[in-house]
Amino acid sequence: MTTATESLRKKAEAAKAASRLLARASTATKDAALANIAAALERRKDEIAAANKQDYEQSKRDGMNASMLDRLLLDAPRVTAQAADVRKIIALPDPVGETFDARVLPNGLRIGRRRVPLGVIGAIYESRPNVTVDIATLCLKSGNAVVLRGGKEAIRCNTLLAQLQRDAIAAAGLPADAIQFVDSTDRALVGEMLKMRDVIDLMVPRGGADLIRMVSREAAMPVLAGGVGVCHLYVDKSADVEMATEIVFNAKVQRPSTCNALDTVLVHRDAAQRALPAIGRRLAAAKVELRCDPQSLAILQKADVDRLTAAAPGDFGMEFLDLIASVKVVDDLDGAIRHIEQYGSGHSEAIVTSDYAAANAFMDAVDAAAVYVNASTRFTDGGQFGLGSEVGISTQKFHARGPMGLREMTSYKWTIFGDGHVRP
Amino acid sequence: MTTATESLRKKAEAAKAASRLLARASTATKDAALANIAAALERRKDEIAAANKQDYEQSKRDGMNASMLDRLLLDAPRVTAQAADVRKIIALPDPVGETFDARVLPNGLRIGRRRVPLGVIGAIYESRPNVTVDIATLCLKSGNAVVLRGGKEAIRCNTLLAQLQRDAIAAAGLPADAIQFVDSTDRALVGEMLKMRDVIDLMVPRGGADLIRMVSREAAMPVLAGGVGVCHLYVDKSADVEMATEIVFNAKVQRPSTCNALDTVLVHRDAAQRALPAIGRRLAAAKVELRCDPQSLAILQKADVDRLTAAAPGDFGMEFLDLIASVKVVDDLDGAIRHIEQYGSGHSEAIVTSDYAAANAFMDAVDAAAVYVNASTRFTDGGQFGLGSEVGISTQKFHARGPMGLREMTSYKWTIFGDGHVRP
Repeated sequence: MTTATESLRKKAEAAKAASRLLARASTATKDAALANIAAALERRKDEIAAANKQDYEQSKRDGMNASMLDRLLLDAPRVTAQAADVRKIIALPDPVGETFDARVLPNGLRIGRRRVPLGVIGAIYESRPNVTVDIATLCLKSGNAVVLRGGKEAIRCNTLLAQLQRDAIAAAGLPADAIQFVDSTDRALVGEMLKMRDVIDLMVPRGGADLIRMVSREAAMPVLAGGVGVCHLYVDKSADVEMATEIVFNAKVQRPSTCNALDTVLVHRDAAQRALPAIGRRLAAAKVELRCDPQSLAILQKADVDRLTAAAPGDFGMEFLDLIASVKVVDDLDGAIRHIEQYGSGHSEAIVTSDYAAANAFMDAVDAAAVYVNASTRFTDGGQFGLGSEVGISTQKFHARGPMGLREMTSYKWTIFGDGHVRP
Repeated sequence: MTTATESLRKKAEAAKAASRLLARASTATKDAALANIAAALERRKDEIAAANKQDYEQSKRDGMNASMLDRLLLDAPRVTAQAADVRKIIALPDPVGETFDARVLPNGLRIGRRRVPLGVIGAIYESRPNVTVDIATLCLKSGNAVVLRGGKEAIRCNTLLAQLQRDAIAAAGLPADAIQFVDSTDRALVGEMLKMRDVIDLMVPRGGADLIRMVSREAAMPVLAGGVGVCHLYVDKSADVEMATEIVFNAKVQRPSTCNALDTVLVHRDAAQRALPAIGRRLAAAKVELRCDPQSLAILQKADVDRLTAAAPGDFGMEFLDLIASVKVVDDLDGAIRHIEQYGSGHSEAIVTSDYAAANAFMDAVDAAAVYVNASTRFTDGGQFGLGSEVGISTQKFHARGPMGLREMTSYKWTIFGDGHVRP
């Protein structure tokens, strides 16, 4: 083992040991620790911003592009906003200890399932330093220890944020070791971290598709894999054109860089002439580029819609994360369902329809984390779904699916209370 | 790709396609298919027994030991019993479609989580041919397709059972491809199967610890890992000796070959003189060998208990699966908890106590799939816990923990019904 690997190993082991104490911490203690973190963020916001400025200037000199630089930026107002987010976590219910399916069995055994933390969460992320606080505080409230490994671009700011949080939780009587930060930027260390199945219970990659794929492929422990959202909206034969236009517009334009933003518009052939021009104009006015199959292209060109191109095969099944959408005319509802089955990533899929049977058929047939009737895919979010903050959005079917809030960061144990019961 | 790998790939892809149809099959159709399977088992029981006899004789000639031969045996009475087990699955509630956490959000969106099947389950198992029916029927009821890969010792009987089930479900109108059987006994194929993450959603290994470890290590998809149960029972200072004796006896002796059988007895030092002789005599009378730490050995020798040996270090943390138990005196409740933390496998752990505070402290501190107060660890079982049949017992904290019944073989999707909702 290299020195860096050894140091990581020690941190992960310390996190494991701390996780046992944290698992039994009261809600009041965890909330006090969160309040300490929020207060420290506010008190030291200028210091944090200064560390971030160093990271920022360095990355700028290294030629980082503007959108990446914006992700990296953590100025004093953003730190204040983050402190407010931490206080919101205090207000969320603590999932640990919640007991469900509890009952007395016919033989008198009192049985139930009690929520317990998962243990140690590993987080691997890229340039956003706010993740250092986001993930650590969600883990803290859900009783999980955390090993954080951020990008090298944000190393100064991340180091400060991690130490600040360790001090804050220690001041509340919790083990500082429940929050670990990997301060080496050696890339090989990520590979080592992904092998540490005995001390890290779940890996959460936060970043681009390449990072998520690499972590999913190489991790020896379970991975909260999500992030990739190839989202479709199907405009049914019976769709109200105005509703379809507004939902498509919202899903595509409101925040195109997110995983729940719309990528592909599918239109029933009997609705295409009626719906496509209105949808096309609304999107073009917002500077959305439309990559169209031959049928939709003909209709949109005839309607003099701007920013049209012919779709290449790769434009279907593509997550654009930008003001681009692909458009296709399908024969019917089944055609839409088959297209989604082939090209979807299991994230968020929507139908706009006035037809009760079509709404139900779409809902029953489409298999994705979130399936919508007459609503924007942009709602796929822990906050919007009423879960409070989220650690991520899972597109897996194992464990939790869709937005992962605090409750989804737990497991459970069966609790059985007897009076000398033996199995016959 | 070799021909065998290509054939496996095709079967897994066919299972994936069939899983989409099976996911939407009604409970009535699935139950009719199960009834067909039960009827076919009864009708063809002599044919099945004859195929099994060939497997059995071959394995006997190859030198298989008696206990393995017993696992391989599937005679006509056992087939009849299996048909009865299949009928029990018909009586269980269908988890698919069950909707939970459903509500109307403040903005009017109607949201809920609806259970859906996981997709395709891969099963890798050893000599027991009954697994071919057990797993396939539990998958069927929970809407999952299955790819079965049994041991080469049972190949004739397994091939027949798989074909019988394919025919039976096809007769009910379900796709025969929802049940796939890998008839090649090429060992390299297992490695290939474990890579097929795109078409197999969950891998279930059924067999010895080596098989489970290999599958857990090599599978690219999630694994239902369980099976290894290093189970402890702690006799607290305040324990009722008679209760402790009966529970230890039941947990160790009732069926020692199971994963929920007791492996290690821990005794509070203040209870050791009082409890150990009674427990030791009861176990010795059932021919249990006791591997003792120095303190317990001295007490048990003084009490003239039979079948005592000094414990080697490896006797703690060992799953015996036989009439053997290790015994250790601990200083107090904390000592017991620390021992379990170090040596337990997260399966089933028990305390026997009359002390309310000790019962709660043990329940809160011990992290295992099932934690017991004053009851035998032998209850850790889907049937005993009221889940109906079980696919396995998971010792993982991700997804389901403990016995996995039909509901634990599902995921869910978020269903969202709006009226033109867009995100502000």
